[in-house]
Amino acid sequence: MQLTFSIDPEALRQRRERLAKLVDFPIILWSGQRHARNYPANTYPFRASSHFLYFAGLPLENAALRLEAGKLQLFMDDAGVDSALWHGAMAKRDTIALAMGADAAFPLSDLPAWNAHAATIAVQHPSTHAAQEQILERPVPAVRAAEGIDLALARAIVHLRLTHDQAALAELRQAATVTVQAHQAGMLAVAHAKTEAQVRAAMEAVFIAQNMTCAYPSIVTIQGEVLHNEQYHHALESGDLLLADVGAEAATGWAADVTRTVPVSGKFSSTQKDIYDVVLAAHDACIAQIQPGVEYADIHRTACTTIAQGLVDLGILHGQVADLVDLDAHALFFVHGVGHLLGLDVHDMEDLGDLAGYAPGRQRSDRFGLKYLRLNRPLQAGMLVTIEPGFYQVPALLNDPERRSAYQSVVNWDRLAQFADVRGIRIEDDVLVTESGSEVLTAALPTNAAAIEQQMQG
Amino acid sequence: MQLTFSIDPEALRQRRERLAKLVDFPIILWSGQRHARNYPANTYPFRASSHFLYFAGLPLENAALRLEAGKLQLFMDDAGVDSALWHGAMAKRDTIALAMGADAAFPLSDLPAWNAHAATIAVQHPSTHAAQEQILERPVPAVRAAEGIDLALARAIVHLRLTHDQAALAELRQAATVTVQAHQAGMLAVAHAKTEAQVRAAMEAVFIAQNMTCAYPSIVTIQGEVLHNEQYHHALESGDLLLADVGAEAATGWAADVTRTVPVSGKFSSTQKDIYDVVLAAHDACIAQIQPGVEYADIHRTACTTIAQGLVDLGILHGQVADLVDLDAHALFFVHGVGHLLGLDVHDMEDLGDLAGYAPGRQRSDRFGLKYLRLNRPLQAGMLVTIEPGFYQVPALLNDPERRSAYQSVVNWDRLAQFADVRGIRIEDDVLVTESGSEVLTAALPTNAAAIEQQMQG
Repeated sequence: MQLTFSIDPEALRQRRERLAKLVDFPIILWSGQRHARNYPANTYPFRASSHFLYFAGLPLENAALRLEAGKLQLFMDDAGVDSALWHGAMAKRDTIALAMGADAAFPLSDLPAWNAHAATIAVQHPSTHAAQEQILERPVPAVRAAEGIDLALARAIVHLRLTHDQAALAELRQAATVTVQAHQAGMLAVAHAKTEAQVRAAMEAVFIAQNMTCAYPSIVTIQGEVLHNEQYHHALESGDLLLADVGAEAATGWAADVTRTVPVSGKFSSTQKDIYDVVLAAHDACIAQIQPGVEYADIHRTACTTIAQGLVDLGILHGQVADLVDLDAHALFFVHGVGHLLGLDVHDMEDLGDLAGYAPGRQRSDRFGLKYLRLNRPLQAGMLVTIEPGFYQVPALLNDPERRSAYQSVVNWDRLAQFADVRGIRIEDDVLVTESGSEVLTAALPTNAAAIEQQMQG
Repeated sequence: MQLTFSIDPEALRQRRERLAKLVDFPIILWSGQRHARNYPANTYPFRASSHFLYFAGLPLENAALRLEAGKLQLFMDDAGVDSALWHGAMAKRDTIALAMGADAAFPLSDLPAWNAHAATIAVQHPSTHAAQEQILERPVPAVRAAEGIDLALARAIVHLRLTHDQAALAELRQAATVTVQAHQAGMLAVAHAKTEAQVRAAMEAVFIAQNMTCAYPSIVTIQGEVLHNEQYHHALESGDLLLADVGAEAATGWAADVTRTVPVSGKFSSTQKDIYDVVLAAHDACIAQIQPGVEYADIHRTACTTIAQGLVDLGILHGQVADLVDLDAHALFFVHGVGHLLGLDVHDMEDLGDLAGYAPGRQRSDRFGLKYLRLNRPLQAGMLVTIEPGFYQVPALLNDPERRSAYQSVVNWDRLAQFADVRGIRIEDDVLVTESGSEVLTAALPTNAAAIEQQMQG
């Protein structure tokens, strides 16, 4: 690679030292390799393993790090002779080692000699995963099945990555800033766009122009009720809401994750505004509650309660709010969790299953209203979480005869039918837990309906 | 998937029938699966295998086709219960089978029962490749090592895919049209852009807005001498040339591949114009020569000869042009081949090594001036090729002491130094071989220097 951005070797050194206090065995972390697209030389953009990035700071391809007692060894090969012709001058291994503060650097062929008693984490690329097993001379199961030193390593890394140091926060803030710019560009583009794809183009162009990429497949859709919609072919019609869940990833790998829902016409209908304000009330109540020590599950419950209360006020639900939430009646309209960890991954450390998201001893519920809750831990200063309540009319849920019968008595279906122009609304921000409460990294982007209407006018 | 675009089942049926005339064994083709990016649920965009796309017409994930005697069986699973919530309503297997004109459709679990004596082609995704071997109960080597029915299948598919039917041409023309629009947008963006990345953003936004993607990693660089540069961080300075090699891929997989080189200031310097006109002369001479029966290697030689002549005229080379080309003196400045096949892959069928690019019995030369020639066949009507001569000052080549000494007597290094503001120029179009000669699918984009300067002004 070319060294086109700077890293902070002191921050990397501190991460290694913190890790050394948690484990007493050596560790080898692989960066992974490019995935072939339609043939070997035509690849997807390279994305290094997040665990590697956390300790290396640089997205090196086909590289490995060995960590032991705070010391860092870098294993990678210098580019071959033809590489300069096709890919330009590349930084040498020794230059990269110096930049990241490594204690030593070796070619990859030396790595097997350092394999003894080393823990690792399975990477996503199948061929690199096979190399992990070959070099360590043992199976390296995916983390749900990990045990022994691999599991101990995963727990130690979770401990470190759960809260963000200043170097990480600088990158996360940058990703948040560019994401806000992308949403501003998207809101401006709606006035002239004829399709979802055109709005998506305006937003992603902001990332490309700043050498960032999408942290996840963008959702830009008039079918906001499809939670992970990756289709962009619909025409925009004047009565539609457009839901845009689009986040940047910095070149160093750190991510942002933001959603706004805007009226295609530039003005919310009264029914859209009514529901929008319910979701916004949940968003604001959740953020107000964030501080160290608070259980994230309680914040999720705040979202559920606020949404249930709002729907009672609108006449869509009837009953006592606490009872409705206990019945998961809110989940008919807000089925997912109120958010998740955010860091080097948009669902941070989801490659480790629920090891990061759920505190030790806790397991994911299979209850309708809780099974998609991705975070269930007490908050700590330095954690970055998303807050993303929503309201959706999902045909697969609302038309399910069993569910319809179960909730027959608490839903006013006729009243609900009056809100047919609300398919899906989500409002999502990235919130840092601070010593004194919270800081919304994406606060520059308006949330309230009037401010959004104004933003859309430029 | 959702069926968001139409396919032509009659065209697919004709492809199957043509294949059935070439082979007498059953064939199973796999589409492949998504590559995990940083964790399993966060994936790269799916790209189906090109061989699958050729016969299926649709980018189905985790699907397989079985072809026998012109009959098509589709194997895929319908989406699970949760899928509607997260990904929306998906077309059912039977609906998709109908759309593509399949004769029967089965769940994937039925595929092993149909494995007898079937040929296949190795896909790029390592896990799908493992599934191929498991289901066929035998090794499936990559095509360079293929033999028996797999090699016979690869040869038959090469025969079909070498020339394009009307359905393919409709898609290729669409990709070419959108690519021309992207280059026009890029040329306009240069006036205000401060970095390579900003021009790239303007170009790729055109693809995204039309639900297309990049057929290959874009090259948008002031270091045009780096042939496959994937860095976009440089600032644009007034004296620079900006080389943009950017091509669209339609949702059906068909590709375009276009390069233009433009002056950042909006006006070529006299030295830049001199070299530009040499490259353009080569481009035009090659296209003029294209017709059925002509050897592509001869067209490559035309490019070499025209460039050598131009450099002699400019005083950069001395000697007889034919001698200079025989010495590979032109290759100091034009090291790559003049182009390649274009179709479902930007280097079409490069997953098959040189099986498509080189006529039977021909092998790639290891000569300096020929080793990067990707196509060496007589042209046929219906072939689509790129024509992409260039001029580059590659430090790794020009400063190589051995090469410098070998070419000491034919290069006027002092004269060359006067062209220091020309790092890399390439002009690339997509050219269809027709019965009567050729048709440039990307002709709407200007090539001559004055027309480019005008295009940049809008």
